[in-house]
Amino acid sequence: MQQSEFEEGDRIRIRKSTDSGITVYEGIFMPTASKNIVIKLDSGYNIGIQPQAVEIELVSRAGVVQEHKTIKKAPEAQRTESLPALSILSTGGTIASKVDYRTGAVSPQFTTADILEAIPELGQIATITGKVVYSILSENMRAAYWQRLAAEVSAEIQNGADGIIVTHGTDTMGYTAAALAFMVQTPVPVVLVGSQRSSDRPSSDASMNAICAAKVATSDIAEVVVVMHGSTSDDFCLIHRGMKVRKMHTSARTAFHSINDEPIGRVQYSSGDVASVQIEATAPYIQRGERELVLRDALEAKCALIKFFPGEDPAVLEYFVEQGYKGLVVEGTGLGHVSAEWIPSIWCAVERGIPIVMTSQCLYGTICDRVYDTGRDLLNAGIIEAEDMLPETALVKLMWVLGQTRDMAAVRQMMQENIVGEIKGRRMP
Amino acid sequence: MQQSEFEEGDRIRIRKSTDSGITVYEGIFMPTASKNIVIKLDSGYNIGIQPQAVEIELVSRAGVVQEHKTIKKAPEAQRTESLPALSILSTGGTIASKVDYRTGAVSPQFTTADILEAIPELGQIATITGKVVYSILSENMRAAYWQRLAAEVSAEIQNGADGIIVTHGTDTMGYTAAALAFMVQTPVPVVLVGSQRSSDRPSSDASMNAICAAKVATSDIAEVVVVMHGSTSDDFCLIHRGMKVRKMHTSARTAFHSINDEPIGRVQYSSGDVASVQIEATAPYIQRGERELVLRDALEAKCALIKFFPGEDPAVLEYFVEQGYKGLVVEGTGLGHVSAEWIPSIWCAVERGIPIVMTSQCLYGTICDRVYDTGRDLLNAGIIEAEDMLPETALVKLMWVLGQTRDMAAVRQMMQENIVGEIKGRRMP
Repeated sequence: MQQSEFEEGDRIRIRKSTDSGITVYEGIFMPTASKNIVIKLDSGYNIGIQPQAVEIELVSRAGVVQEHKTIKKAPEAQRTESLPALSILSTGGTIASKVDYRTGAVSPQFTTADILEAIPELGQIATITGKVVYSILSENMRAAYWQRLAAEVSAEIQNGADGIIVTHGTDTMGYTAAALAFMVQTPVPVVLVGSQRSSDRPSSDASMNAICAAKVATSDIAEVVVVMHGSTSDDFCLIHRGMKVRKMHTSARTAFHSINDEPIGRVQYSSGDVASVQIEATAPYIQRGERELVLRDALEAKCALIKFFPGEDPAVLEYFVEQGYKGLVVEGTGLGHVSAEWIPSIWCAVERGIPIVMTSQCLYGTICDRVYDTGRDLLNAGIIEAEDMLPETALVKLMWVLGQTRDMAAVRQMMQENIVGEIKGRRMP
Repeated sequence: MQQSEFEEGDRIRIRKSTDSGITVYEGIFMPTASKNIVIKLDSGYNIGIQPQAVEIELVSRAGVVQEHKTIKKAPEAQRTESLPALSILSTGGTIASKVDYRTGAVSPQFTTADILEAIPELGQIATITGKVVYSILSENMRAAYWQRLAAEVSAEIQNGADGIIVTHGTDTMGYTAAALAFMVQTPVPVVLVGSQRSSDRPSSDASMNAICAAKVATSDIAEVVVVMHGSTSDDFCLIHRGMKVRKMHTSARTAFHSINDEPIGRVQYSSGDVASVQIEATAPYIQRGERELVLRDALEAKCALIKFFPGEDPAVLEYFVEQGYKGLVVEGTGLGHVSAEWIPSIWCAVERGIPIVMTSQCLYGTICDRVYDTGRDLLNAGIIEAEDMLPETALVKLMWVLGQTRDMAAVRQMMQENIVGEIKGRRMP
């Protein structure tokens, strides 16, 4: 019989031919957006079975008394004793949602069962627990929410989670990843994941991204990372460092790129074959257990990012100083420039104890203000060069640094020091 | 004898073997930063000769009475009758400068001879005239300077130039290119060119970029374009549309990329062999003479670009409104979002007749606010979607549109209309 002939609740038996022989699965047929056949086993776990090389037999129709209660042969992956414990913290992401990930459709009733119903393959990778931290559109994220999220991540790790998945809207996922990277020194993987296409669309990346994220969250990569599609062929996800990643396309599934750094590696993916999903690390990373759990969640939220444009009035900078902002990141041009008439305003701000951090709207490459007149004047005025940090990461880091200290010399030193991988490049030229 | 044995002013004779035989050049040895041997011919033109397969003979030392006045055989390319007329307008660029291009080292004494001394190959491509319009660091560019530059470009075309080259610091070259694209409807090529490495460095891209720019300026591509290095192998430059190009690296020579559009084509380059430099167009373009010259140089300079970041206070938007800004471009997240608390402020600004244009900090992809709640609220508040325009281009276009009209409906229509190639992509999703 064909998959399409069954209804939710039917009890079915599946014989799947593999290289190592025939495996038999039996359970309740479940509706799914995945291409796989999903059944709920009598153990309570859902599994997804790739529809190739299977024979499906109806045991009993939905509602009919079930006479067969024993599983003929459960696959190895269903034995849960040795599976790691993953905690999924939802902020409004897509994993457990059948409708759009950004409308906040992850309800407060979000349970482990919801997650496994949506993406049953996760049950083969880990024992899952889920918690809704927020249910918001990611453009509504803010420093205070990052702080609570960091505390939740920390609590889950303290409670024994072997890895954390944070589901997040993609718009500001890079900012949140950077914030968590600074706030949580983690002994286990902390993986942010989202989806560019909602799971009701055939081109959805929700399921694949989640499976790859779970694989990374159970790996030995003990860093805050973003796991998202790496190619349009659905054959791998990339593992980006949280403080070096940026959303570079409004809608493409391959929107996330590591900037000024290589990804840690990739997750090779084959639809419906969870056992074959493998991590290929291509860069060194911090190992599981290498560091103690430390939560440093103080942030100074009153910081701003100003993008310079030709002819921009320096009164804009003065406005932020007058409004009591505690630190400013400027997204300058090229190697880190603003027009000459900004220099007195920057001087005044620095004199008043407001750190001014220079980044580049080029995004790629390193700040270097030693080369040209304007840059040297900016250095004399006391600007802090953000090296090869993303402007967004520099903003988050400045909030975090100002949460630790108000001493200008210390702020300067911390901003220019590589703390969690946010500074990678050599100085130019 | 070797090139290094000669001094400035020595009269030398060069025999160069080529596939088609031996060509003999005679003239005064000139100092140069180029790898080529540069001599001033008796016709007054300089030429650069690739140092491979040459024999050099001393005719007379500098200061010694010259007895040989006739050129044995000048190459075809030195015949000037049929060469097109190029006008080089300098704003502080590198072409004629031996020192750093951003320090304003292009002096007011900048002459055709200076250009040809620095890059003698240009003399094989066109009859060159040069003019210093500005001598500034490009971060000091502003709307008023764009206006004067547009008027100068227009005047040169009116005076019969077959093509215009604008030398420009790279930091804000994309903004200026976009501004010229809106202000000058041109019947001839208008080519902006710069250099990421100054011409005193071995890795300088000044000479190659200039030669490729000259080739494009004498072509039939009658658009405002940016011509810059396309690969690190020095084998081609790319021809980018002025309103779709962005500097994407602080220091790399390949920093310039077309965003949301393909380049018009490339210029294949072979060092020292100007005759072989060829344009390969890979996209349609406006042909030479297809349009009349029109200068529309009115700009409303009091416009600003605001990059949104998580938690940003909408008071920032209100500040610009209170300061009398006439139009604002917001660089939102993803498909074009800001936090929900910005929506009332946007509503108020639009009510007061201030157009608010939404772009994306993703840079790649198209704005689409019809998908999610925040977006729909923004549309209701009267936001203008900038489609797939770069934020920088949207700012320049808004200045230009507000220079043409103050009618909100007309502003909205013009902003969403493709006027000079600034909107390319289909609407998403």
